[in-house]
Amino acid sequence: MQNHELEQVIKNADRAINNEDFDHLMEFYSEDATLVVKPGTVAKGTRKFAGHSLLSLNTLNHSLIVNQEKVAIIETGDTALVVAQAQLSANQKEDSEFSMERTATYVFKKDSTDTWRCIIDNSYGAEIIEELK
Amino acid sequence: MQNHELEQVIKNADRAINNEDFDHLMEFYSEDATLVVKPGTVAKGTRKFAGHSLLSLNTLNHSLIVNQEKVAIIETGDTALVVAQAQLSANQKEDSEFSMERTATYVFKKDSTDTWRCIIDNSYGAEIIEELK
Repeated sequence: MQNHELEQVIKNADRAINNEDFDHLMEFYSEDATLVVKPGTVAKGTRKFAGHSLLSLNTLNHSLIVNQEKVAIIETGDTALVVAQAQLSANQKEDSEFSMERTATYVFKKDSTDTWRCIIDNSYGAEIIEELK
Repeated sequence: MQNHELEQVIKNADRAINNEDFDHLMEFYSEDATLVVKPGTVAKGTRKFAGHSLLSLNTLNHSLIVNQEKVAIIETGDTALVVAQAQLSANQKEDSEFSMERTATYVFKKDSTDTWRCIIDNSYGAEIIEELK
């Protein structure tokens, strides 16, 4: 499961986040991708969640740094499940620093041009079941 | 994200496991599905992993009971990411009982007959990244 081409895709997406290069970042997603904004809330379509990303970055004083070193990829056909250990750090508006580790879960799919696109982005991993009754 | 038709599919698959009804269980999977047998090892194709399942059940004295009550579903188009809190219990060959909770992660896809099939089965959830260097 090592040295999969998706590892480089994820590194490139992290770089786009860290550089706040949203135009580039959106290219990593399919147009109808679903993003978990927070547990219990999803945004569908890149147009919608580009707005969410901007809002988050504003809250974080534009200091968000994401780094995903450990990435496991389980593939079948044109679809892959990605489980990644994501390190996040940022300064919040109230100027308290935060740094956290999340286990993010993504689904990627190859499009008609054989390019991997993220179709489901759940950076909260298993946290999303804690919201359920 | 509640009352999704996949919740019933997962309940039915759990029942098939608990009844050791493998013919029925295999119907929940696409033919080219990928199963994480253990962190670092995958089996591709239902024929291959039916064998793995039988082996596991033998080790567990055919006493495995799986129950997934909390299920979160994130969907886009014909594909869904499922994060489930799975309760497992069994008696091992050495007659020590075990009971554990896992956060399983699955990818389901609708086939040409509009039936949801599991295409990636990772019952280990985030544990699969702990094996990576």
